[in-house]
Parts: sequence; C-alpha cells; structure tokens
Amino acid sequence: MTDLYKESLELHKKFKGKLAIAGRMIIKNMHDMSVYYTPGVAEPCRVINRNKEMAYDFTFKNNTVGIITDGTRVLGLGNIGPEASLPVMEGKALIMKQFANIDAIPICLKTKTADEFSETVERLEPIFGAINLEDIETPKVWDIERRLSDSLSIPVFHDDQHGTAMVVLAGIINALKVVGKNKDGIKVGMVGAGSSGYAITKLLHFYGIRNIVCFDSKGAIHDDRNDLNKYKKELAIINESKFKGIINEFGEADVLITATGDPKALPESTIKAMSKKNIVFALTNPVSEISLEQAKKLGITVFGTGRSDYPNQINNAVCFPGFLRALLDLRIKKINQKMFVATSETIAKNVKNPKPELIIPDVFDKKLVPAIVSSIRKINL
Amino acid sequence: MTDLYKESLELHKKFKGKLAIAGRMIIKNMHDMSVYYTPGVAEPCRVINRNKEMAYDFTFKNNTVGIITDGTRVLGLGNIGPEASLPVMEGKALIMKQFANIDAIPICLKTKTADEFSETVERLEPIFGAINLEDIETPKVWDIERRLSDSLSIPVFHDDQHGTAMVVLAGIINALKVVGKNKDGIKVGMVGAGSSGYAITKLLHFYGIRNIVCFDSKGAIHDDRNDLNKYKKELAIINESKFKGIINEFGEADVLITATGDPKALPESTIKAMSKKNIVFALTNPVSEISLEQAKKLGITVFGTGRSDYPNQINNAVCFPGFLRALLDLRIKKINQKMFVATSETIAKNVKNPKPELIIPDVFDKKLVPAIVSSIRKINL
Repeated sequence: MTDLYKESLELHKKFKGKLAIAGRMIIKNMHDMSVYYTPGVAEPCRVINRNKEMAYDFTFKNNTVGIITDGTRVLGLGNIGPEASLPVMEGKALIMKQFANIDAIPICLKTKTADEFSETVERLEPIFGAINLEDIETPKVWDIERRLSDSLSIPVFHDDQHGTAMVVLAGIINALKVVGKNKDGIKVGMVGAGSSGYAITKLLHFYGIRNIVCFDSKGAIHDDRNDLNKYKKELAIINESKFKGIINEFGEADVLITATGDPKALPESTIKAMSKKNIVFALTNPVSEISLEQAKKLGITVFGTGRSDYPNQINNAVCFPGFLRALLDLRIKKINQKMFVATSETIAKNVKNPKPELIIPDVFDKKLVPAIVSSIRKINL
Repeated sequence: MTDLYKESLELHKKFKGKLAIAGRMIIKNMHDMSVYYTPGVAEPCRVINRNKEMAYDFTFKNNTVGIITDGTRVLGLGNIGPEASLPVMEGKALIMKQFANIDAIPICLKTKTADEFSETVERLEPIFGAINLEDIETPKVWDIERRLSDSLSIPVFHDDQHGTAMVVLAGIINALKVVGKNKDGIKVGMVGAGSSGYAITKLLHFYGIRNIVCFDSKGAIHDDRNDLNKYKKELAIINESKFKGIINEFGEADVLITATGDPKALPESTIKAMSKKNIVFALTNPVSEISLEQAKKLGITVFGTGRSDYPNQINNAVCFPGFLRALLDLRIKKINQKMFVATSETIAKNVKNPKPELIIPDVFDKKLVPAIVSSIRKINL
C-alpha cells in the first residue's frame, strides 16, 4: 500500500492535478474571435435570454455535471475539508470523462451547514446539466439531497447513496443466481445506516426484498426506538419483520452487507449463524469488515468488498458514468428508484455467467455505459 | 452583422458549447484506477489536509481561474441573467485556454445581492487559483471586488475594470508617441463612470496623468457634488483641476475616452473643441460613440474603439490572458496598479513602430503572454 501511495503522490505532482479545460474549437483569426466571442456571441445570449432551456443547445450545460462536496466525509479519511477533497473529485471527474465523455467540474465548497451548501448549489445551477453530491457527512447530506431534489430543475444524484446501492443490487442479483436463491424468500441484514446503508436498504426493499433489517451502532432500526431521525424512521418502516435485536442475534441470514466504516464491526459468530449458500458484501474501505482469508475460512459462498485487490469489487465506477450519461442524454429532471433498478439489472446482465468470484462486470467494459442509457431510456418511454 | 450572428448561432449549436473537460492522463487499467482514484488518491488528500497550500502541487488549482458573473451587465445586452451569460463566459474561457493555457471555469451565479455573490465566491475559493469577475453591474461589482480582495487568499481580477484600463493605457502610451506629446502636460477627459471609466481614470492618474476629469451623466465628477457614492468620491479626488462643467464645456482636451453604453453620448462639438494632434477612444460596443467616418471627418489623429471591424481595437484579449497567466505562475495574492502599468507598458512595447492606425498589438502575437508574465515577475522581485 505504501508503494501505491508514493506512486500516487508522485504522479499527482508530475501532472499537477488530473483535469484541464479544453476548447471544442480553435480561434484561428479575428473572424473566429468575432463568432465565438464578441460581437457574434451576443446572438446565442439573446436566444437563451428568451428561453432558458436553449442553454442546452448553445452552451456546455448539456454535458456538465457538478461534482459537489464540502469534504466532510471523504473516502476513509473523514472530515478533511474542501481543499484536501479536491484530488478525489478530480479523480471522479476523470473517470466520468474517460468512461462516459461527461464534462464534470469538481466543486469543493467551504461551507458549514446543509442550508449554506444547498443555497450555494442552487446559485450554481445555471451552468450544470446534473449534480453529483459526493463525500458529505450524514445526516447533512440527506437534508441537502431532499432540498435540492425539490428546488432544482436538474437531477440530483448522490453516488455514495445511489451509486453504491445500484452496484450492490447488481451484485445481489448475480449472487442470488450463484447461490440458487430468489429475492422473495431471503433474509437480509444491512449493517451500517450511513449514506450507503440507508440507500441500499431502501433500494433492496423497493426491488422486492421484504425481509430486510438495517442496523446502526445501537442495533436493529425498528419503530419502537425513540432515537431515530426522520431518515432512520423510514428504515424502521422497512423493517417489516420487526426484528429488534443486535446484529449478532440476527440468526440465519442469507445476505449480510456491511458499510460501517469500522473494520471490526462484524463478529465472526454472525457469519457462522448465517444460512448455507450465503452472500456477504463487506464494503468498508480500505480495510473491509471481513478479510478474504476470513471469508474463505468461514465458507462464505459469494463474498464481495470495495477493494480492488479482492475479487468481486463492488465498484461504483461500473454505475455512475452510465447513470449520469443517461441523466444528461435523456434530460431527466428527477431521478427515481425505477431508474436504479433498471440500471442494476443492466449491470448484472453484463456478467454473462455469474460465478462465486465474478458477479460484477469489468469496469473497463465499454458496453456498460450505452447499455445503462438504453435501459433507462426504455422505462421513460 | 446579421450574417455574423447567424454564423455564431449555428456554430454554437453545432459544437454544443465551446468548452469541455479533458483528463491530463488516461486510466488504462485497475492499477491506474487505484493510483488516480481510491485508494491511492488518499495520499495527496492527506498531504493537502496537513497543509492547504499543497493543493497547488497536487490539484489543478495551480492553473484554474473562475470566470464569475451574475449576468447583470453582459456585453451591450444588459441584465440577461446567469443562463444567458454563459456563452460569453465560455468564450472568455476559450480565449484563456488558447492564448495562455489557463483552465478557466465559467461560473454563472443565480444571485441577487453583492453579499450573496461574494459569499458564494468565498465558498468556491478552494478550487481556484484566481478569480476573474465578469459582466456584473455597478456599483455592485465594486462592492464585490473590494470584499473579495480582502477576504480571499487568491487574486481577484475584474476584466471590465482592470483589463480595459490596462489596454487603454497601452493605447494611450503609443498614441502619445504618435502625436508627439508627453503624459505630463496633457488634458484628458473620461466620459462614463462605470466599471471601465472608473478603472481607466484611476489607472491613468496612477500612471502620472494629473489633469484628468471623469464625467458621469450629470457632468464632471468633482468634490462639491453631494450625489456621489464612495467610488465616485475617489474620482472626485482625482479631479485635481476642479473642473465642474459638462463634457461639452471641457474645451481643449488632448485625449477623450468614452465608455458610456450610449452611441450618442459624445457631441461632435466636444471633439471640435479638442487640441490639435488629438486622441479619441470611443469604447462603447457594438456601436461606438464616434464612427470611423465621423472620426475621419473630424480629423481625429489617433482613433480607437472596441470594434473589431475598425483599426485600433482596444481589445482586452491582448491583456487578460497574459495578466492571469502571471497571477497563476507567480502565485500573486493581491493585484495592484504597479502590475497594471507594467502590463500596459509591455503591451505598448509589442508595437514596434506605433502609427495612427497601429497602437495596439495583434491579439494573436504569441510573444505577448510571456512578455507580460516576465514584466510582472520583474516588479515582484
């Protein structure tokens, strides 16, 4: 790992960042200057002034995504602030460019509250075709996402929630094929109620998994608890089995997913209590809650993590480039769970023959992005 | 002009805007992904978290300029709003890229007040190496510029003020050579007290022109007037001759500069009253206060405008790419009038033999940008 960090530091310094601005044309002479700048540029300005929607035709708004953070919950690093979060946001923009030809602009905001953050994004709306919220602490990020989804007329995507949930669902779809089970009968535990735990629980439930319980640090989230914020109350409603214990008492689960931020959050006894032919996704990075060695020793049938050095990386990069490409191409104003399910099913389908160590497609598979766009286009028709 | 507008509209539509994001490297495989994104990217994040200044080494901050507007005073179009101003900002960014390899990001803000605008830019500071304020109405823009110059630790440039003033001074330097006069003895009238009139008056005065009077719609700005805001009070102090009349009473001026926004603001009689061997810069676009035909008829010795179809275009594009390149390369925190004068003198010097119809260098002259950077480097040493 040390070598990787050293290489990363050296290459970031060599290239002085990862992004640049490029022109779509060259100004060769004064005539070009008059066409692309003053006085000619006045004409597209006038047209957009009459109808703001025309900005999609005459400016780069049709292809821009704002990757917006306040740097309060970056990777496994925590609250490192906006300046220090910029390398991550540039990296994300680089992936969006290379995988889906999206022009993404990293915006790292020096803000404190959800209101400050939200009003700033509202003021930035004119230049963007879509918003990608990134690496913001909970519950703030949910407040921001709700407000912006209402106030903006461009779509608001939150990769830590929606992207992760879509890739997890894709992985579950294929893992269920591997273990020969069906979504209808299975029992699922989601350990961790941050951005990803919240969104995964909601998406798996929407997908049709009825027996699913989300756990926070105090145990199962259920509706007898009186310490729940409004977002966790939604998760309590989803807990249809009314399970009220801690994860170690959960018993014979078919699927366990962990996104806790704590490499030691999952006791081995919990795994041992699971049903046969089981599925475990241990998503905390850089050190997952279960190591590959443990997973083998415990006989987990399908094991996935967020790590690139293990098989079955639950990697958002198979999802967000295609999903954002679809938002831009289809000029979608609001995102919804139907779009998420369509995307997950498409990602799952891109693995021809799912196997215990192959449930997620290769992130470099060029068919992924157009397949996701096409699947979302279909549900909109 | 109609043909130019049509061509501009067609080309903007064809290219769907003028800017794109480009990666500085290609992600070829999972190893590259681990270096430029997670987990490797955590290392530059950690380094910047320890010392924010390191963002200049490991992110694109070292080369980014935010071109920031609220669209309240765009070209000759007035208050057309943030969406409709985007083609102008993209055009400006395109010029910055092509002429000075700057990565400029257009930011068109949906804000109303100077405070809203300023606090938004303060929140955006982490991603930028410099700020270029653009096309904002007065007096709001002065309030914004003052506040941000104090609150930000990156330089705040306002092209409508500083860029215009620098090019005008460059033009005056060469025009004085043509008419054989010296800055010490001349009498100068500045008609118009908006962004450019204000900044031109201040810069010419700083340069050493003592007999200069700025006029607004009510006549000369002098210290007996009680209708002046704090910015115009600065111009009243500069009026050392204590002239109190209207422009038509100004008499034997050597130089008249107009930036009024009104093609009819300058009566011919004012020109006729000027001294022999005179200089007139009529800067309103797209229709200048004096036409080329009038200028010839009136026998103006050196005549300049903002128009690209006339000789002597007072074109900010000879200035802002080089000036911003210098701000970034030299990591300047605050701009000042000494830098402006050095830039103007450099621009002027790039015309080898000034003639009545050649006082401003060719905007495509590749020597301009490095020459400006070099001249500002010298005054900082």
